[in-house]
Amino acid sequence: MTLIAQYHVEAQTGIGFLLQQGHILTVIDPQGEQVADLVAFGQSYKTEWLSSGRSIDYSETIYLTTGHVLYSNRSTPMFTIVEDTVGKHDFLFAACSSEMFRILGGIEGYHPSCFENLVKNLSPFGITGDMIPTPFNLFMNASVLPTGQIKIAPPLSRPGSFVRLRAEINLIVGITACSTEACNNGTCKPIDVEITN
Amino acid sequence: MTLIAQYHVEAQTGIGFLLQQGHILTVIDPQGEQVADLVAFGQSYKTEWLSSGRSIDYSETIYLTTGHVLYSNRSTPMFTIVEDTVGKHDFLFAACSSEMFRILGGIEGYHPSCFENLVKNLSPFGITGDMIPTPFNLFMNASVLPTGQIKIAPPLSRPGSFVRLRAEINLIVGITACSTEACNNGTCKPIDVEITN
Repeated sequence: MTLIAQYHVEAQTGIGFLLQQGHILTVIDPQGEQVADLVAFGQSYKTEWLSSGRSIDYSETIYLTTGHVLYSNRSTPMFTIVEDTVGKHDFLFAACSSEMFRILGGIEGYHPSCFENLVKNLSPFGITGDMIPTPFNLFMNASVLPTGQIKIAPPLSRPGSFVRLRAEINLIVGITACSTEACNNGTCKPIDVEITN
Repeated sequence: MTLIAQYHVEAQTGIGFLLQQGHILTVIDPQGEQVADLVAFGQSYKTEWLSSGRSIDYSETIYLTTGHVLYSNRSTPMFTIVEDTVGKHDFLFAACSSEMFRILGGIEGYHPSCFENLVKNLSPFGITGDMIPTPFNLFMNASVLPTGQIKIAPPLSRPGSFVRLRAEINLIVGITACSTEACNNGTCKPIDVEITN
C-alpha cells in the first residue's frame, strides 16, 4: 500500500476530497469514542449520492461492516468495507445541524455541526446543502430497541480504531469529526483520514 | 371534513399530486396487507425532500405513528401523523426498483417497481429519479433484530386500515401501491387515497 494523502480533521470540522476508483479510504479514530460522518457523490454524476435506503436494503441489516457494500441511490456500489475494527456504525441519522441542536437540544445560538461542515467542504465540488444525504455515521453507537426507540451510547471505538473502505467508482467524499457532544461521550475529538492504493 | 380528491391506485402503480398546507391526506389499504410508499417535496423548493434521517432523529424512533412529525432535509415539518390505525411502518428501505429485483431477487427481466412509478408520476412536477429519497413505507412491516438484521413480515394492516397525515407546507406528493410481492404477503394489491380539509 502506497500512501497518497493524509488528512487530520480537527474536532468539529470536516474535509472534502476526490477519491479515485480502487483507492482505499481509511477513517481512523485516533483518541477513541469519536463519530465521523461520511457522505459521497459520483464524480461522473454529482446527483448520484450515497444511499442509506439502498445500502440497508441490499445488506439486509442496519449495521454495515466488513464485506458490506455501500450503494448509491442508483444502486451503484460506491464503497466496499474491506476492514472494520469496530463493527458498529449508524446509518439512520441525518448529519447534526443547527436545526437539530435547536429541536433536540434547545440551543438557539450557534453550534458547529456536521451538516455545516459537509456543506462548507463539499461546495467547492458543486455539492449544495439540499444534496446532502443521510451519512454513514462511522463509530456512532445507535441501537434500535424492540419498541423502535433509538438509544445512543458512547462509540465502541478505541484509540486507533479504524474502518477501511475501497472506492468502487470515482467519488467526491465528505468526512466530518462529529460536532455533537452527546454522540461522542461528552467531548468532540479529531478524526484522521488516509488514502492509499 | 370536505372531500377534495379521491384516488384509486391500482396494484403496482402510483400517483403524483399537489397537496395544500393544512389539507389532510388519508392513505387507505382497502384489502389489507398492502404497502404504500410515500415521498414528498416542497412546492416552493423542489430540492426540499422528505428525510428519513431527520424524521427518525427528531422522533427518536424508527416506528413513526400518531403524533410524530415527518421532516424535510431542511428540518421543516412536512406532515404530522394525525391518525394511524396500524402503528407500524418502515422508514429504512429505499423504494423497490428494477435494480433491487435484480440484486435481491435475481430477476433480470422487467418487473414493475415503486421507484419507476414514483418517477413516472412525479416527473410532470419536475421531480427526477435522482431526487427520490427513502420513502415512508406505510404499512411495511420491517423489524430490526438485536443483531441489526431486518426481518420483513406481512403488513399488520387489515381491510380499511389507514393513516391520516396533515400537510404542514405546500407539497408535491408521490404515493405507490408497492410492487414487491414479498412485502405484501405474496400479492400486490391497490391503495386508496383521499384528500380532505
